[in-house]
Parts: sequence; structure tokens; C-alpha cells
Amino acid sequence: MPLVDTLAFEVIHTSKKSRARVGKIHTPHGIIDTPNFVAVGTNGTLKTVDNAIVGEIGLQLMFCNTYHMMLQPGTEVVKNGGGLHKFINRPYPIITDSGGFQVFSLAYGGVANELKGRGTKKTDGSVLKITEEGVLFRSYRDGSKVFLTPESSVLAQKDLGADIIIPLDELPPYHISKEKLVESLERTHRWEKRSLDTHLENPKGQAMYAVVHGGVDPGLRKKSIDYLKDLPFDGFAIGGSLGKDRKEMFELLSYTTQHLPKDRPNHLLGIGDLPSIDFCIPLGIDTFDSSYPTKAARHGILFSENGPFNITKAIYASDYSPFSEEFSFAYLHHLFKAKEAVGMTLATIHNLKYMVRLMERYRQQILNDEL
Amino acid sequence: MPLVDTLAFEVIHTSKKSRARVGKIHTPHGIIDTPNFVAVGTNGTLKTVDNAIVGEIGLQLMFCNTYHMMLQPGTEVVKNGGGLHKFINRPYPIITDSGGFQVFSLAYGGVANELKGRGTKKTDGSVLKITEEGVLFRSYRDGSKVFLTPESSVLAQKDLGADIIIPLDELPPYHISKEKLVESLERTHRWEKRSLDTHLENPKGQAMYAVVHGGVDPGLRKKSIDYLKDLPFDGFAIGGSLGKDRKEMFELLSYTTQHLPKDRPNHLLGIGDLPSIDFCIPLGIDTFDSSYPTKAARHGILFSENGPFNITKAIYASDYSPFSEEFSFAYLHHLFKAKEAVGMTLATIHNLKYMVRLMERYRQQILNDEL
Repeated sequence: MPLVDTLAFEVIHTSKKSRARVGKIHTPHGIIDTPNFVAVGTNGTLKTVDNAIVGEIGLQLMFCNTYHMMLQPGTEVVKNGGGLHKFINRPYPIITDSGGFQVFSLAYGGVANELKGRGTKKTDGSVLKITEEGVLFRSYRDGSKVFLTPESSVLAQKDLGADIIIPLDELPPYHISKEKLVESLERTHRWEKRSLDTHLENPKGQAMYAVVHGGVDPGLRKKSIDYLKDLPFDGFAIGGSLGKDRKEMFELLSYTTQHLPKDRPNHLLGIGDLPSIDFCIPLGIDTFDSSYPTKAARHGILFSENGPFNITKAIYASDYSPFSEEFSFAYLHHLFKAKEAVGMTLATIHNLKYMVRLMERYRQQILNDEL
Repeated sequence: MPLVDTLAFEVIHTSKKSRARVGKIHTPHGIIDTPNFVAVGTNGTLKTVDNAIVGEIGLQLMFCNTYHMMLQPGTEVVKNGGGLHKFINRPYPIITDSGGFQVFSLAYGGVANELKGRGTKKTDGSVLKITEEGVLFRSYRDGSKVFLTPESSVLAQKDLGADIIIPLDELPPYHISKEKLVESLERTHRWEKRSLDTHLENPKGQAMYAVVHGGVDPGLRKKSIDYLKDLPFDGFAIGGSLGKDRKEMFELLSYTTQHLPKDRPNHLLGIGDLPSIDFCIPLGIDTFDSSYPTKAARHGILFSENGPFNITKAIYASDYSPFSEEFSFAYLHHLFKAKEAVGMTLATIHNLKYMVRLMERYRQQILNDEL
């Protein structure tokens, strides 16, 4: 199939053993083989690795954060620069979020921080007010007030021009009453509908994924899917709080995913650690985004067939076995010890290549009905 | 000429207008066309740029610092890893210094700092004692005492295995009495002779350049060359204090360079800013090393035909003209504003390519007798 004008999804094979499936998401900038891993380039780049190299590595989909791009360089700048693909020199598929996640997670500090009682003391970047209209927050860059609405989020994403965009949603905290959660879910649904309407006024070849919410309440998750699946969204993302630990998350996802329409692609937002990927692929998740593989790399945590290891440990100081065709473990260890930024670059490339190969293997296992 | 076993130098053309000359330094790891610029990879890497890419750019000679490599990862580690070329993945020529420059400049803080009364308060890395035997200093990494002698410096450089190595010298401060300067010069000559003797016991295909000293005293500079040129050094480096400003440096270099033997290559240590290169090429300088082009790049200072400019300035925020074939000025500006390390990588590659092209142009001008 040649390049398409807008997103098209085909399921190539569903495993006989599970709901795991192999598919192809066709986009105007190329194909995303699923299941696949989506690396996060917050500011339009995977910190420390040039997009030209990321392209060579075979990363098929990159996540950019609308919130950050709105504040720097501004979505208008990107639009006038020919859109995100041209501006950041990435001719391959890109997905952007609505900005809502950053607004709310900077305010609440994420589930982990919230559960540990941290995160509410953030002085930079915080939600000032949530109304039916949208959310007023303070810029983490200069403290100025920014008002984000479903319409302004989608228009910002139109400026960026990613292949897949996300409607504005609210990210309620983990600790919330049922009543407040229902209230938030209903508002999020209204926001998503407004986002979709704004999008459909001028689709520009972009596709929009709905975001399924409902917190850790299975009934509300199903209710969310039931509402969203009847709207002409091109796919589904799973967002919001998924629980306080992996067990709760896995239970919730096992339940939620079985209600997702099978004819459209789905995406698990912000979850891409190796155990979660391993658990979620049999549930039929198509794409995962996470900054973990790249962030871990910058701290010297490298992925391998035998599990992750820390290159900064002393045992690697004189380990001359080849890390790659080009250099040894000892050299990479030295770069980290000498605080040379290029160490982070080489480590990031390694972890990305690992993720690309890992996902290829998962696809092969599904095709073989082994998973 | 195929790869040689050790350094060989040929002068291809000397300008009819000046002492500027085009030559080829043949080394076991390839040719260095002269005049040429030598980038500084202190810890075995040009911060933020992988050596594989540096190779592609066409940088023919890279400078690594023995002092830093001694302290991290240790020259023994590099030796056991197959030597510097293999360890750092650079199959092209490398030059190392003796370590003396760092020992003394960390102590005195360099001429600029010395003249401004700074630099003596450094608590990390300082000279504890200079004796006939060598120099005792404190490691900047862990405060441990290290004793560097002509013999230990050369043996460390044997471990590293660079194509060109440098004898241990003393770097006296700019403000020094004639008597002390003569004393220092004579000791430096004895150290250089001991370095050479140690080197010649086991040449290993390496070449050794003498270091011409004598501070800002022309008579002592000539005396230094007269002494060193009768020893079997493969080339000459110009070291030590060259003056308090560019005028004094240029006068001193104009005088000094005319006494250098013409049949052997020469190198100007630590000077590689654009005006100095432009002034010194007609004096017959063959190679220049400087961390300026790479350090400037990391601060957003980019070289161009119209002079250097600062990419972080607001005028570049929406400058969509192509910076390279791949992206615009606006994108590079954005990367610096967003504090993305990859901005430094792209800027460094740019300045290096500029230096490579600039030196090619100088060589062509000399061949045309235009310089």
C-alpha cells in the first residue's frame, strides 16, 4: 500500500493463544507495524540523538508533547516552519498529545508522586482553574498564564501537523471520590467531543485517537469506551490513572482492553517499561509510548537479552568485550565516568535499537501463534 | 603512498608569497594534509559527537589529553583495550600531549587567568612540587597525589599509542624572571631529552615532536630550537607562554617560526582561533589544535563565511532558511532554547565541518601562491 492520505489500519493476524495481534497502521508519513514501541521526543527530539539517526534506527513512531512545543518554540513557529515533520527533520510518523497530560501531571506530580505525598509542592507549572471551557495553568517556563481548551489544543496540534493527534482530556488524580471521578469523566467526554468536532472541521490528513478514561473504576472504563466508540475517532488511547501498582494496572487493563473495538488501533499512553509491554501485548495493545528506555539510557541503564544492566558499574571498567561493532563496554563505561554527553547518545541509540528489535520479535511470535 | 610504519613528512608546495606550505604527514593511521586543524577530544571524544561521525566529517587529526586519560580511565585500561585508536573507535591519526600542560595550567590557570590574577585559587588539581625528577601534583578527580616524570609521561603515551606523542615539559607562568625562565628552559630540555630516550627505547611506530620553549624571550626561543633540532625528534611543537595578547604572540611567532627546521612538521599547541590561524599559516605552521571551535559550538556560537554568530539570539527563532540540508536555523535555535543536548551535537558537527573546509581552502590558496 503506498502512502495514504490519512490513517488506515489493517489487522494482519490475531494470535490463536491471546488477543495479541499484528497490524499495520498506514499514515501519510509511512507505516507503523504493530505492536510497536513509541519513543518520546518531548521537545521534538529524543534528547541526545539527532532525528536523522533516529530515523535510521527504525523507530516508526515518535511522540512529541504539545504542551512543551506550545511554550517553546510555539506551535505557530513550527507551523510556519512547514510543520513538525519538516521542522524537526523527521519524515516518519509522529503522534502528539493534547497538552492536558503535562498540565495535570505537573500539577499533581503523577500517581507515584501523589501516592508518596509529593508533587503538590511544585511551584512551576500548575493548574490554576478547571472550568467547562478548559483549563487555566501557569507556564513552567515563564510563569505566564495559559488557557488550554479542547479547541486551542486541537488547533495547536493542527499547527504541529502530526499524523495522530489526541483530544483534550482531564487527568484526575488517583485519590478521588467516585462522584468527582464521574464528573471528571463526563467533562472529559464533552471535551473530547469538542476536540473531535474541531478536528473534523479541517482534518488535514491527521487522525485522532479518543482517550479512554474512568480511572481505576472498571465500570467507568467500560462506560467511557461505550461513549467514545460511537464517535468517528480513528483509534483509542488508554489514559488516566491506571492504579497504584502494576497489579492493579494489569487487572484494569485486562478488563478494559476487551471492550475496545477491534477494527481500530489502540495506544497505551505513557506505559512502556518492559514488564508492562510483555503483559499488555497479549491483551491486544498496538502501541506503547514511554520515555523510560531513553531516560534509563541517559542514566547508564542499558537493555540486554539478560535484562537491564548499569554500565557505570566498576565491573565494566575493563570489560573489553564488544558492546557494538564499534566499541567495547569499557569505552562506554569510560564515557559515563568522564561525564561525556556522547555516552548518553550511544546508550540511547542502543536502547532504542533494542526496543525496535524487541517489538519485531513480539510481532514474529504473534504471527507464529506463540504468544 | 600506502600506510607508513611511522611518521613521514613531505612538503608539497611552499607559497611564493610567504612561508606558508602545503604538506602531507603520513602516519600509521593515515594522512594529515597540512596546514590542518586538530580538534581536541580531551577524554577520547569530542564532547557530544561520536567518533564514528567525527571520522566521516574528515577531521584528520584528533588531540587527546594524556593527563585526563591517566586519571580516567587510566592508560593501562586503554592499553589493555587495544590502544587509543581501537578503544575510542577512531581509526585515523591521533596526537597526545605529555600531561604537563594540564598539570601546570590547572595550577597557574593559564595566561589569561594569571594576568587577571585568577587561577591560583584552584583547589582541584595543583602542582605540589617540581624537582629535577619530575612534577608532583594532586589529581583533580580524587585529590590523590600523582608523580609525573618524563619517563612516566612517555610510558603513559606508549600505553595510549597515539601516532604523535609529546615529551614532558614545564609550563612556566607568564610572569617570571629571566633567571627562572632560563632555569625552567634548561630543565625542560633535560626532560625532553629523557622523554626522547624513553621513546626511542621502544618507538612502536609512534613519532615524537619536541616542544619549543623560552617564554616570550626571542633569544631563548631560538636557543630552544637550536638545542632541540639536533635531536632526532620527528617534528616540533611550539609551547609555553606566547605573550599577554595577540600582538605579542604574533611578533614572537613570526620570529620563532623562521628558525624551525623546514624538513620536519611543526605544530602550534593550543592555538586555533580563526584570526590566529589566519596569521600563522603564512608563517609556515602546519597544524593547530584548539578546543575553541567545539567549545564555541556548545555555547551556540557557529562559524560562517560572514563570521561567527550566536544561534541562541532571538532573530533565529523564526529563521526558516536552511541551516543544513536537513533543518533550519529556527530548529537549531529551538534545540538550544529547549536545552536539548542534541543542539550542541549539531552545532559541533557544523563548526568541525567548517574547520575542515576552511583548511582545505587555505591549502588550495597556498598551492595557488595566493597566500
